[in-house]
Amino acid sequence: MHKGLVVQKYGGSSVANVERIQNVAKRVVGYRKKGYDLVVVVSALGDTTDELIELASKITNEPSEREMDMLLSTGEQISVSLLAMAIHKLGYEAISFTGAQVGIITDKSHTRARIIKINADKIRRALKEGKIVIVAGFQGVTLDQDITTLGRGGSDLTAVALAKELKADECEIYTDVEGIYTTDPRIEPKAKKIQKITYDEMLEMASLGAQVMQARSIEVAKKFDVPLHVRSSFSDNNGTMIIKEVKVMEGVLLSGVTLNRHEAKVTICDVPDKPGVAAKIFKNLSEGGVSVDMIVQNVSHTRKTDLSFTVAKTELVKALKIVKRVSRNIGAGEVIEDQDIARVSVVGVGMKSHPGVAATMFGTMAEHKINIEMISTSDISISCIIQKKFAEVAVKALHNKFGLSK
Amino acid sequence: MHKGLVVQKYGGSSVANVERIQNVAKRVVGYRKKGYDLVVVVSALGDTTDELIELASKITNEPSEREMDMLLSTGEQISVSLLAMAIHKLGYEAISFTGAQVGIITDKSHTRARIIKINADKIRRALKEGKIVIVAGFQGVTLDQDITTLGRGGSDLTAVALAKELKADECEIYTDVEGIYTTDPRIEPKAKKIQKITYDEMLEMASLGAQVMQARSIEVAKKFDVPLHVRSSFSDNNGTMIIKEVKVMEGVLLSGVTLNRHEAKVTICDVPDKPGVAAKIFKNLSEGGVSVDMIVQNVSHTRKTDLSFTVAKTELVKALKIVKRVSRNIGAGEVIEDQDIARVSVVGVGMKSHPGVAATMFGTMAEHKINIEMISTSDISISCIIQKKFAEVAVKALHNKFGLSK
Repeated sequence: MHKGLVVQKYGGSSVANVERIQNVAKRVVGYRKKGYDLVVVVSALGDTTDELIELASKITNEPSEREMDMLLSTGEQISVSLLAMAIHKLGYEAISFTGAQVGIITDKSHTRARIIKINADKIRRALKEGKIVIVAGFQGVTLDQDITTLGRGGSDLTAVALAKELKADECEIYTDVEGIYTTDPRIEPKAKKIQKITYDEMLEMASLGAQVMQARSIEVAKKFDVPLHVRSSFSDNNGTMIIKEVKVMEGVLLSGVTLNRHEAKVTICDVPDKPGVAAKIFKNLSEGGVSVDMIVQNVSHTRKTDLSFTVAKTELVKALKIVKRVSRNIGAGEVIEDQDIARVSVVGVGMKSHPGVAATMFGTMAEHKINIEMISTSDISISCIIQKKFAEVAVKALHNKFGLSK
Repeated sequence: MHKGLVVQKYGGSSVANVERIQNVAKRVVGYRKKGYDLVVVVSALGDTTDELIELASKITNEPSEREMDMLLSTGEQISVSLLAMAIHKLGYEAISFTGAQVGIITDKSHTRARIIKINADKIRRALKEGKIVIVAGFQGVTLDQDITTLGRGGSDLTAVALAKELKADECEIYTDVEGIYTTDPRIEPKAKKIQKITYDEMLEMASLGAQVMQARSIEVAKKFDVPLHVRSSFSDNNGTMIIKEVKVMEGVLLSGVTLNRHEAKVTICDVPDKPGVAAKIFKNLSEGGVSVDMIVQNVSHTRKTDLSFTVAKTELVKALKIVKRVSRNIGAGEVIEDQDIARVSVVGVGMKSHPGVAATMFGTMAEHKINIEMISTSDISISCIIQKKFAEVAVKALHNKFGLSK
């Protein structure tokens, strides 16, 4: 009895040790028994990736990105082979593949490659032979056969891309939490699990710091309308469905409050206020492979102005190097860094039709005497950069103020 | 100044930790500075392979061989990327490749694959670009892109095969000992380093228990006349040259004494003494993938005889299963195993022209009251199976008797 094709993705914590791998194998076989075809995408075991990064850092602090990909891709190769063995042990047929083997072809941007196409014939053939297919997440291969990785959280992308390519009936993202919450429950214990959320809201939440799913994979899911089910590999409870549209009840303003403590702020002082200067700065950053997040420049009443932007802390050294060079070229002043910042954001499609969210947000900050250093808004989110020490207070206050704790 | 191409192979102990990897990088760069092109074959870090095997054994005691290869091949992938980074750190260009990437094409015999051909274009291109090429040892890939491994010690084979394919001027095998010794120095401290040894002698010594190099790789080196230099990665001393012919001085009878404690003896009792029976037994073992080593069958004066053979301990379970089944079919009796045996051998091309080596060997055993359970001879070696507890006494006695301690 053929029930359809399910793509499942298990994150690192779901396969952190032998016992958990066996647990995943049981879950996979459970679906098989019900008549589903299965493609299972797996991340590296627990902290393997971090351990490999640590190992490389003992050798060099500027590792070649090609060699990093070569190194890190071993993590998933270990977990797929072990999961295949665990499924065999339960008496079911399974076969593991690396990203290269299943033809996940990417561009040459090592450590953050983009998938160009997937030659899924090998998977289709294995499925036809009745096998459970296990695919290494996070990795691909260039047309020159160089191994690439898709960036942090790239296994989600592997799962979504495969679900799209194979026209899967469902794409389940297994993690160590029960789904998406209105905010991080470790900060605000009153946080609630969200039943359904739109791609757009999830996208904002992911890019604003909710670490459950990688933003890029939600973009892809949205683009190809792949419904996602984010759930826990440790329970049978339903998690959070990420879908195209959610019927919003009146009064539901926000989906959640997010926090990102992994960014740093860079300020270039006394930037000459003339056309093309900002372009020059951000062109150089972009060419140097630095992703800039928020940018703030004040209107200037003199000939000079200050320009601030945020970047991931991991890219701060690279960013400072570039910015200091460009700053000298354009005749700007000092470059100041600040690593003690946090970004607090509120997200919700509801705010489109409800003005006043921004005012309430800023008012809440003021009530708690929290200074707002930068502000950025989108259609369905508002973000504030504040000092890191106020981060948790701000999250709790906003979660409460917008009625998410109820 | 182009000096020629050197293929170097570094074993697991030479790259057991970050410090040792950096040491290897320095050595490689040292050759580069002298003007050599370099292809460097690397094994997995220290005990990585054993740790991965241990991990798999926690999941299943009969892992799929395809999945084992998938798992184990990650070990070398980690070491090649780290070595490339360490060389970059010293300011030199290097690029790492997996077995699959450099086109080491093998047959489909997972865990003990044979190299069919090498498409070394990628290596040639990288060398032409002035890069030091780092290749993952021990692994290859089938025409279907399934990852294979070449069996224990397979990195030696990778090095020798690449040296042949690339017409290298030298092939250096780096290990944690200074070369080949007349016997294991841990057993007999008077053991001496051998300056030069022939392929044939080395082959006997390797297959008889000297674990410095894998036998198959010496066969390949012999076949294509690739001179090998076995030496230590921890010193600059010359090691042992393995070459076609060594001018033997008068009186030099033996090259060394070897010991193998990794075999078990299987005896099939009361085998019907008629044509085709032995063939049936060993055909079944061979089809089951069991490599049999020594075989002894006594002339029988009745209609039944006992037949003994030895196998690697790792294959004992498989061998017993097959032998017990066949034994029932052919109407033989009980099957007895003995794991407490050792094989002691003397090796030397000199014995071809000097009769009496066997007599001296057996006499030495008798002097020490050691019972010989099986005997096997070749052109340049004589082996005895004895009880394991006498192994070290036998090695020391033979090493002394044949004048190797001088």
